[in-house]
Amino acid sequence: MTPAHQPPGEIRPGGRTARTRAAVLAAVQHELSEGGFAALSMERIAQRSGIHLATIYRRWRSVEGLVCELLMEASTAIPLPDSGNLPEDLRLLARRIGSFYTAAPMRRLVEAVVSSAGRNSRAETVLADFFHDRLRMAGELVRRGIERGEVPPDTDPEAVMSAVGAPFYYRILIARGPVDADLAESTATAVWAATLAGAYRTGGAAPVADPGVVRQRTERTE
Amino acid sequence: MTPAHQPPGEIRPGGRTARTRAAVLAAVQHELSEGGFAALSMERIAQRSGIHLATIYRRWRSVEGLVCELLMEASTAIPLPDSGNLPEDLRLLARRIGSFYTAAPMRRLVEAVVSSAGRNSRAETVLADFFHDRLRMAGELVRRGIERGEVPPDTDPEAVMSAVGAPFYYRILIARGPVDADLAESTATAVWAATLAGAYRTGGAAPVADPGVVRQRTERTE
Repeated sequence: MTPAHQPPGEIRPGGRTARTRAAVLAAVQHELSEGGFAALSMERIAQRSGIHLATIYRRWRSVEGLVCELLMEASTAIPLPDSGNLPEDLRLLARRIGSFYTAAPMRRLVEAVVSSAGRNSRAETVLADFFHDRLRMAGELVRRGIERGEVPPDTDPEAVMSAVGAPFYYRILIARGPVDADLAESTATAVWAATLAGAYRTGGAAPVADPGVVRQRTERTE
Repeated sequence: MTPAHQPPGEIRPGGRTARTRAAVLAAVQHELSEGGFAALSMERIAQRSGIHLATIYRRWRSVEGLVCELLMEASTAIPLPDSGNLPEDLRLLARRIGSFYTAAPMRRLVEAVVSSAGRNSRAETVLADFFHDRLRMAGELVRRGIERGEVPPDTDPEAVMSAVGAPFYYRILIARGPVDADLAESTATAVWAATLAGAYRTGGAAPVADPGVVRQRTERTE
């Protein structure tokens, strides 16, 4: 978590502030799993966590603030791989994202956050900042790949990382289908092939090959 | 639109039912553009459209039903290309999706629908059915490509079409950034390269190449 996202109030690991935070976030997660975002309220969270309503309001201000902080907390469960080669790192990362979103509470959480962002501009800013931070950090995988000469040097690390995430959010938010192992493997293969093809070069994507070239490449593939 | 999505009531083009529908959907679009989904209500739609509140309730039941129908209506503005070759079709389709979501009201609409789906299981079903229908129809592009021998015959048409849409929804719903021409070009290049690499074959994605093979392919790319 970056300092910009630090909630107000002093945080001492194991201290009272940390215990309050843990109790409140656990309550948010529980409430989301049970009733979804629509049923979430500051009052219910206070009741379940045993923390004073006034304390929760003072520190998080809204249910939107709470679900965003829970998402940040949860995302630390997706560590960034460093296997020594980029296609392997992409595959490991795609699998970790896949495992993360196989759990129903995590799907509910991302749904809740996106739903908040559509209704509340502060939640939208928090969501956008959070994902930009994650993309920047995850971009390190690609920067190492560039240093190792695996991909074109003008590859945009954040564009590659967006491409790793996009299929999962599409599956959850739009197609509303299950996140499974096939999606992770397909995503890793797709992003690596697209990166090699120059789809994420900062100079703009190379134009799609003309049909003559295409036929030749297809024959090589089959 | 498939018969399953037909709203209750007889539809005669140019008839009173059609005029009612047009007036109500125009009002929904206007309200969404002005206040977003949070401010949308059946009462405001009735007021703006001049249609009786009872009529709107009888036919659409909820604001969720209304935004879903508006999305279906709007999506007919993205015609499916048929240029005679798949990479060109993918590029044309990506550009059309890109142009469609450049407009702020369309971004708001998809946000509203996804937000509804997270809160209302009926809206979720309508959204999922709608996108599955679109994917099935759009899959025709890929089936023609298979017939022309452009891509492996076991390529999954709907997986390819999901990959064309995913980057746009990620940009709108997660990264909260602008949809621009670069995104369309990058998406078209990426999906075509991934399709050729077998990422969307129904037998499951080919495993990511080992580092030796990778180095060779990178050299060819640069």
